[in-house]
Amino acid sequence: MALIVQKYGGTSVGTAERIEAVAEKVKRIHDLGNRVVVVVSAMSGETNRLLTLAEQINPNASKRELDVLVSTGEQVTIALLAIALERLGCKARSYTGAQVAIRTDSAHGKARIQEIERERIEGDLGAGQVVIVAGFQGIDEQGSITTLGRGGSDTTAVALAAALQADECQIFTDVDGVYTTDPRIEPRARRLSRITFEEMLEMASQGSKVLQIRSVEFAGKYNVPLRVLSSFEEGEGTLITFEEEGMEQAKISAIAFNKDEAKLTIRGVPDQPGIAYSILGPIADANIEIDMIVQNIGSDETNDFTFTVHRSDYKRALELLGETAKILGAREVRGDENIVKISLVGVGMRSHAGVASTMFEALAQERINIQMISTSEIKISVVVAEKYLELGVRALHAAFQLERAEA
Amino acid sequence: MALIVQKYGGTSVGTAERIEAVAEKVKRIHDLGNRVVVVVSAMSGETNRLLTLAEQINPNASKRELDVLVSTGEQVTIALLAIALERLGCKARSYTGAQVAIRTDSAHGKARIQEIERERIEGDLGAGQVVIVAGFQGIDEQGSITTLGRGGSDTTAVALAAALQADECQIFTDVDGVYTTDPRIEPRARRLSRITFEEMLEMASQGSKVLQIRSVEFAGKYNVPLRVLSSFEEGEGTLITFEEEGMEQAKISAIAFNKDEAKLTIRGVPDQPGIAYSILGPIADANIEIDMIVQNIGSDETNDFTFTVHRSDYKRALELLGETAKILGAREVRGDENIVKISLVGVGMRSHAGVASTMFEALAQERINIQMISTSEIKISVVVAEKYLELGVRALHAAFQLERAEA
Repeated sequence: MALIVQKYGGTSVGTAERIEAVAEKVKRIHDLGNRVVVVVSAMSGETNRLLTLAEQINPNASKRELDVLVSTGEQVTIALLAIALERLGCKARSYTGAQVAIRTDSAHGKARIQEIERERIEGDLGAGQVVIVAGFQGIDEQGSITTLGRGGSDTTAVALAAALQADECQIFTDVDGVYTTDPRIEPRARRLSRITFEEMLEMASQGSKVLQIRSVEFAGKYNVPLRVLSSFEEGEGTLITFEEEGMEQAKISAIAFNKDEAKLTIRGVPDQPGIAYSILGPIADANIEIDMIVQNIGSDETNDFTFTVHRSDYKRALELLGETAKILGAREVRGDENIVKISLVGVGMRSHAGVASTMFEALAQERINIQMISTSEIKISVVVAEKYLELGVRALHAAFQLERAEA
Repeated sequence: MALIVQKYGGTSVGTAERIEAVAEKVKRIHDLGNRVVVVVSAMSGETNRLLTLAEQINPNASKRELDVLVSTGEQVTIALLAIALERLGCKARSYTGAQVAIRTDSAHGKARIQEIERERIEGDLGAGQVVIVAGFQGIDEQGSITTLGRGGSDTTAVALAAALQADECQIFTDVDGVYTTDPRIEPRARRLSRITFEEMLEMASQGSKVLQIRSVEFAGKYNVPLRVLSSFEEGEGTLITFEEEGMEQAKISAIAFNKDEAKLTIRGVPDQPGIAYSILGPIADANIEIDMIVQNIGSDETNDFTFTVHRSDYKRALELLGETAKILGAREVRGDENIVKISLVGVGMRSHAGVASTMFEALAQERINIQMISTSEIKISVVVAEKYLELGVRALHAAFQLERAEA
């Protein structure tokens, strides 16, 4: 008899009919003899409806009161799901974040969970009840309602799974798992049955937005096996878990890409200590996040410096870099918005040589010029011209045989 | 510096604009140096919207889960009102029933308040905050959300006023006070500046549905001065208070009437002990409420028995009475749906003789036949044909000079 925490997002509980469908899913797993805790989000559209009402009245509402307001969204869903389960003859009890109690700090709108009381939930589970908990919300030391920020229901589910030492935390969403790459780019992309936390984190930060990255980190930290499944289709989904010793690993698990970046280059910068800070300091001061950074010594003992920023920050970053170039007496500033970053992700990379050379060879065969390269323990990223996105991803997908079923 | 509890109902907070108008009213009284606690209902229509959702999923939902569901309605309003007050530069904090905490028994859907914690509210008031509390809801010993039943926000306001020993509890509604009679029947009806709790209770039970009767009882029990005011117009409203010694009282304060009753008569019943129970027992067993009861000894040593019931119960009561008549060998059963009960209400009646004779004289002058008479300490009620409603009320209003301003 396993203890399972399930989480259903706003789309999955968006109508009375969908809530009834979720109730049936929950009942089925409960009837198999499992103890089940269900975390739900607000019905899709509800949070925005409430925020619009608040906005009409006061565009500068305090975060404390906005939390009182939006937390009603999940409270409606927990009650409706309990009511739906009762209809199916399945005993269920709903709880708000305050009731269970999910204790957080007082950072309204982006609170962090500090502690969860287990007694009440364990008592109900012991009595054969399905326990339904409002996602996204908690209570602070003063008894004020807090929210964890958008997408926080995933975090609630993982935190509950950790506190209850659940056997699995299942996140139901509108995709049926994590794929080797985006199937809209490469139709031969294949759903992965397993992926490691590290790989998932690299995937998520690369733009494969299946799960909130914070909940993946949380699950990794507390060793909670996490499974991504579809609310609307049957299937095993993808299990996100720790790397197991002795497990035969594919070199590469997946290919991520990011079309939202732009590249900036400053050339002919004097080779002096502190020069990186002189260049990147003003960018950081303007709250522009920098992703990849590459530095080369040029032929004349000066430096070339290239980095990427989010495309929406490109113009501003280019201006700032122009000013810096004048101060430093740099030779030239260049920029390019039409790039894409393609990344190979895989823990198997650690123990297998030749990943980079296979990657470069596959791209060379398609005559795709590599503009930047960056590597980490389990990832290699390259920047290429945006027009090569599909060609590059497909070439790499084939070169690493990702369409093949896992061993 | 007074402590004032104000309550605004669903219509008063039905839109964002109306919530802003309430915020302005609250700010004004707060700016005068008063400490203010505001109790609000759900925005009009919201409770029904939520119940319809639940009904769609499960017509037999448990009361516990329905309470979790509908209590979100008031929670939305408290947050929006706090947000509106912040906009006006008025410090405010909102609380759910659970947060304050309004402790109730566990009778979900019709819970009764047992205790209210004062510390938190008093702390906020001391810090110059307006305190906003969700009406209609509380929390039971197990930490489950409860509701007090429809209209329960009035009770929340009165209970808070009692717990905090407030100087006044102000109930804002869509009428501007209590009138000498319904102005739709008698255009010369006048707003009363004061009325006693006893009179108000007699008025309310007679169909002048300004306030929930339970909240009036509660206010009387805990000696909370209660004021009825309009949300939409300026004015002093009507203060409901205890009878003050030595206060010059009008004989009669107001005229109430009830068009929702029907009359039943059983004639020629043997004059035996237990006969009243034989007649009314089967009616009560069918959960039909009986209002007035009159019994006369007839000419032939048999009894005539007349009573009134709600008009919706008339047919069923007539059937039951027919069966009883057969068993008892009664002479005749009669019924009449086209009646109206008109009542004079006034604590001044106690010390002034001649109220009844003035009443009967006024009705006689208009040739209105009295079918039943019933009296209590501060009330005289008569039943007359329904067609005499307007004529009777106006004749009595004039006879007791109710259009004149109070002394």
